[in-house]
Amino acid sequence: MYEGFTTEQLIERKQAMEARFAQYKAQNLKLDMSRGKPSKEQLDLSNGMYTQVTDFKSEDGVDCRNYGMPDGLPEMKRIFAQMLDVASDQIIIGDSSSLNLMYDTVARAYNHGLLSAKPWSRLEKVKFLCPSPGYDRHFAISQLFGMELITVPMMDDGPDMDLVEALVRNDEAVKGIWCVPKYSNPTGAIYSDAVVKRLAQMKTKAEDFLIIWDNAYSVHQFYEENPLLNIMEECEKAGNPNRVFIFASTAKISFAGAGVAAMAASRDNIRHTLSQISIQTINPNKVNHLLHARFFKDYDGIKAHMKKHAQILRPKFEAVIAILKKNLEGLNVAEWTSPRGGYFISLDVTAGCAKKVVAKAKEAGVTLTGAGATYPYGIDPQDRNIRLAPSFPPLNELIQAIEIVCTCIELVALEKIQ
Amino acid sequence: MYEGFTTEQLIERKQAMEARFAQYKAQNLKLDMSRGKPSKEQLDLSNGMYTQVTDFKSEDGVDCRNYGMPDGLPEMKRIFAQMLDVASDQIIIGDSSSLNLMYDTVARAYNHGLLSAKPWSRLEKVKFLCPSPGYDRHFAISQLFGMELITVPMMDDGPDMDLVEALVRNDEAVKGIWCVPKYSNPTGAIYSDAVVKRLAQMKTKAEDFLIIWDNAYSVHQFYEENPLLNIMEECEKAGNPNRVFIFASTAKISFAGAGVAAMAASRDNIRHTLSQISIQTINPNKVNHLLHARFFKDYDGIKAHMKKHAQILRPKFEAVIAILKKNLEGLNVAEWTSPRGGYFISLDVTAGCAKKVVAKAKEAGVTLTGAGATYPYGIDPQDRNIRLAPSFPPLNELIQAIEIVCTCIELVALEKIQ
Repeated sequence: MYEGFTTEQLIERKQAMEARFAQYKAQNLKLDMSRGKPSKEQLDLSNGMYTQVTDFKSEDGVDCRNYGMPDGLPEMKRIFAQMLDVASDQIIIGDSSSLNLMYDTVARAYNHGLLSAKPWSRLEKVKFLCPSPGYDRHFAISQLFGMELITVPMMDDGPDMDLVEALVRNDEAVKGIWCVPKYSNPTGAIYSDAVVKRLAQMKTKAEDFLIIWDNAYSVHQFYEENPLLNIMEECEKAGNPNRVFIFASTAKISFAGAGVAAMAASRDNIRHTLSQISIQTINPNKVNHLLHARFFKDYDGIKAHMKKHAQILRPKFEAVIAILKKNLEGLNVAEWTSPRGGYFISLDVTAGCAKKVVAKAKEAGVTLTGAGATYPYGIDPQDRNIRLAPSFPPLNELIQAIEIVCTCIELVALEKIQ
Repeated sequence: MYEGFTTEQLIERKQAMEARFAQYKAQNLKLDMSRGKPSKEQLDLSNGMYTQVTDFKSEDGVDCRNYGMPDGLPEMKRIFAQMLDVASDQIIIGDSSSLNLMYDTVARAYNHGLLSAKPWSRLEKVKFLCPSPGYDRHFAISQLFGMELITVPMMDDGPDMDLVEALVRNDEAVKGIWCVPKYSNPTGAIYSDAVVKRLAQMKTKAEDFLIIWDNAYSVHQFYEENPLLNIMEECEKAGNPNRVFIFASTAKISFAGAGVAAMAASRDNIRHTLSQISIQTINPNKVNHLLHARFFKDYDGIKAHMKKHAQILRPKFEAVIAILKKNLEGLNVAEWTSPRGGYFISLDVTAGCAKKVVAKAKEAGVTLTGAGATYPYGIDPQDRNIRLAPSFPPLNELIQAIEIVCTCIELVALEKIQ
């Protein structure tokens, strides 16, 4: 860090940072970039769903207000099928939260068992692979069910597959892996074709090994479209068609808290899951499906809509990266990713400093995702990683917040040196 | 049956019924009264929710389109709190399906354990009490989790409490009971004060005994309001505040498949449940909460709205009962209930005849709820009970359907005699 700086220059720089920090603090700011929430401007893009609702009939004449259809509305299935590149009869649509669909999938494996497998609740131990840095809410689900969470390093092209293959090969207790394959949370990495193939093909000791494929950001690019290999096809080709459950939602397409979530799987998995869902519930909110299907019409409608989101998000991500670069480049105090889509930037500070940086930022009025959140049990072994969520704050507030974060990073680093 | 009829008269009557049945069959009718679905006319009462949606701000200024509030929107909590006569902080609001909230409550008891209790998945055996005739979807949830279902006779004032008390007293495996306390599905019975008190006070061997109080029809009267003792208060008085979870929804107030569901419980249960729900999901659809809260405003709004439902439902229930009476009174071939609210009429035919009556009706184009559905495992030990669901068909079709059912009842009875 600070190579080529004299002791005097370091002291000077620290004093400058302290002065800047004091100024920030005096402003009593309240800036929140802790969660990947869409901004008001983004949400406004979909208000049209609720205007001019004249009737509630589906294209097949079904009254969406009434009971029925535990697997969701066909026209909404069609859109998800196009989006996820699977057949419509491989889709089940739920209510708003895809996280809830993932939780339920784990809960079903636990209570009733996947296909003909033994329920996980009957086993001594269940382990789950957690590519990290990753999504805290995924890890929290595994933890709630008492699983042992195993950290797997997240690389630029997906999880460290040598390690994954070694872990699943001989241990029957390793039952699955959490994946955000495109614009990964938080690094923005896209799983390479090789990684997708290896996940689909690898030999697992557990016959009911489960890939939870949280394709949350499949259409959320800022620039060009970035391809992702179709894992369902790869699993079929490899003779492991039942290994993967794919999840997606319109949370970051329409309304974050009132979108439509879906899951895709092999026909056997869908049939088996649906036999349980139709006992669990009567139907998801089909009126919400109908409003979405009418508003977006088809996959092309979704793609056109996502261009509007990109126009709002791109400048925010570019601003964050430009400010990080302007302040920190060459100092060797931090590294960051430059995602081509998604909702997060992963920031690595000097080892042992992430918690201090987050605390300092908080002191100056900037709320960041808690340090450690991106690792199993909330513990980052190196205390390095910080997740930045640039989507929610207006651009001017975001710029201010990142400037503050930069100051905090330098302050903590300079304190460490001296 | 047919007391005072001569053999000749019986033959004549059978011939008359056969002729009538043949006529019905020739009409190729398709009448469905299998499920308790509201009619189009009822659903239309709430279309106003979706007109003139101008913004998505809650009364506290929360943007309902975005993430957050896993326990639901405060103004919707307030309405449910009034409806269920509990405090707002004893309420969690979900998506549309209260059945899903019940399933999840059972699943949580199974996976994570109620409060400090051992998860039921760790036990050798779990038994659940099923007052019958009762609701098939309740029993199906217990069955899916591999519980042993114990039938308890349903009386005019609730379940047979002598039996319930005897069953729970010494058997730790008996973990709970399914209750529809008001306008019970399918008999329409209202639990008496004495029954509610006994449920709240009874000694249970299982410390984590769970009353699932499915108060689905609390405001669904056809005539005067019918009081139901507040079980939460009774449980508190008895020193068993954590014994009951109460469920309700607007399914049969607003939209059957797109309403708002809620649960109420002790503050300890709410806190414990919410700590798990906030891992399971991010939030329920708050936009739907907002539309409901704005449309109904408060409990008085709900009550006024339910008078309109009663105007549609009352004539249907009265017609069914009048037709049953006109055709079958004095013949001793059937008995039926005359509910003061709710969605069902319970019809008991001669023992051993329910399946045949349902099959005959089907032959003539009338779909009824499957015989046996109102008992655990779908098996009515006496093969007597049939659930009638008069809400969905238009009045003229309903009249036709019930006339056909009456003919089928007589035909099956007359075949049995001869």
